[in-house]
Amino acid sequence: MPSPREASPLLQQKLKENSAAVNKTITRLLPDTDLPEAKLFDAMRHGTLNGGKRLRPFLAMEAAKLFNVDPNRSRRVAAAIEFIHCYSLIHDDLPAMDNADTRRGKPAVHKEFDEATAILAGDALHALAFEVLSERDTHEDPRVRVELIRELAKSAGANGLCGGQMLDLEGEHAEFDLGTISRMQRLKTGKLIAFACESGAILGKSDEPHRKALTNFAFDLGLAFQVTDDILDVEGDPAETGKDQGKDAAAGKSTFVSTMGKEQAKSRAEMLVQQASRHLNIFGSRADTLREIAEYVLQRRA
Amino acid sequence: MPSPREASPLLQQKLKENSAAVNKTITRLLPDTDLPEAKLFDAMRHGTLNGGKRLRPFLAMEAAKLFNVDPNRSRRVAAAIEFIHCYSLIHDDLPAMDNADTRRGKPAVHKEFDEATAILAGDALHALAFEVLSERDTHEDPRVRVELIRELAKSAGANGLCGGQMLDLEGEHAEFDLGTISRMQRLKTGKLIAFACESGAILGKSDEPHRKALTNFAFDLGLAFQVTDDILDVEGDPAETGKDQGKDAAAGKSTFVSTMGKEQAKSRAEMLVQQASRHLNIFGSRADTLREIAEYVLQRRA
Repeated sequence: MPSPREASPLLQQKLKENSAAVNKTITRLLPDTDLPEAKLFDAMRHGTLNGGKRLRPFLAMEAAKLFNVDPNRSRRVAAAIEFIHCYSLIHDDLPAMDNADTRRGKPAVHKEFDEATAILAGDALHALAFEVLSERDTHEDPRVRVELIRELAKSAGANGLCGGQMLDLEGEHAEFDLGTISRMQRLKTGKLIAFACESGAILGKSDEPHRKALTNFAFDLGLAFQVTDDILDVEGDPAETGKDQGKDAAAGKSTFVSTMGKEQAKSRAEMLVQQASRHLNIFGSRADTLREIAEYVLQRRA
Repeated sequence: MPSPREASPLLQQKLKENSAAVNKTITRLLPDTDLPEAKLFDAMRHGTLNGGKRLRPFLAMEAAKLFNVDPNRSRRVAAAIEFIHCYSLIHDDLPAMDNADTRRGKPAVHKEFDEATAILAGDALHALAFEVLSERDTHEDPRVRVELIRELAKSAGANGLCGGQMLDLEGEHAEFDLGTISRMQRLKTGKLIAFACESGAILGKSDEPHRKALTNFAFDLGLAFQVTDDILDVEGDPAETGKDQGKDAAAGKSTFVSTMGKEQAKSRAEMLVQQASRHLNIFGSRADTLREIAEYVLQRRA
């Protein structure tokens, strides 16, 4: 078990190694170019190769390991998921959306380049995710590729990421109850995290019970992730989180903390992580790294 | 042959019928909802069901007819192509891009709603296009679906639409030679038009020569389309085009007209349309509607 304050050295090592491997794949998929539209590729690289935790790629890689999937395949899926995640961050940071000048301690894409380039870089990463999944290198069986694409498209679209971000913006003018906050977070964060875990099962042509176990794990994990995000918003150290403290409260947003109070939010997050881990029983000790990452999500300070 | 000034009544009728059929499919794929994020769906409908010519869906439907494809399938592909086209228009109209207040005579999405909603509506349509193509109703063979997805993703991404729009923006600060203008237009308009034509061949599991013939037709047609667009920019009637005259020149953009002069641009467009039609010889008279649409592109006044 990790210490209650940070990831175990072994988990930290695994996260670091995975991040390096995924970055290599991303770099290969986003090569330098001297085409006249090179600025677009520069912005795509700036928005992706900026030192994120790569939590979603890690989940995808670990879930795929449970089914002995060739890591050359799962790394492509991990990169595609990160392209979607990064495109959504680039668009979320735009002045018309969350108006964030920095991301992961570096200038946001629209600050390093300009707004138009940021919009286009996000759009191009969005398309690239589907292009990568559609290629034979991702899996020789076209049924597997098309299923990955369908599930990713659903996680990314109006019933996923985009719908969640719409709700998030609406939340600045409306008071949400706990049901709507949960729904918003499930769409905004939960579905892509769930896809990351499920992608391993799809690549491994899993049976239904094992796939379902991963999906359930991912939903509880995603919710725990969001609850701790809301807790970090009120008590995180800006030097560690890289965000201003109390940003959501200042924007008048309803959060888990504003609705249920900090202490209840904390015990809810703990309960969710325990529940998430239990879903993995079907995999026995082979899923220990996924259990450890769930603990890490709870204890993280950034 | 149509009159040299407008589409023949028969072609007009066909365009109208096709537009109605595609709109029905789009409406079905974008149902009304009372979810708390309903605004997003409203914006997606506003950005798609706004009376466009539906040229790309028409090309897709006509190309599919050459291979006796079930129109229920090709209409889904036509809708997916239109989702991509409309998402790109919604983003292009944003203040940070072309800053256009109206589109097809109605308020642009960011004017009817707001910028954030317009960005999200574009993003959600982008994902929806791939979701629609990934579903079994589009084609029972997953190889066909995955090929449609790969080709659409390539037409939409950094080496297609997004790259072309990047070049278009760069063109406001740089003088482009004819090669770069051609490249910009091929990326910005040509590739999606080419995909519309090719999609019929993919759905119909065409042999290579027939598919290649359609691709060649589409590239010449796409270029002719762009050259006439540049001509319309300098001599179109704003009441018919719905755009201000000389908008590109005012923005300092290099166009086919600014580079080769109006008369040469006109004869280039005519030559391209003749060349486009010749590529269809392999289909005999069955491709007459596609030939007629090429003539229409040349003669259109809006």
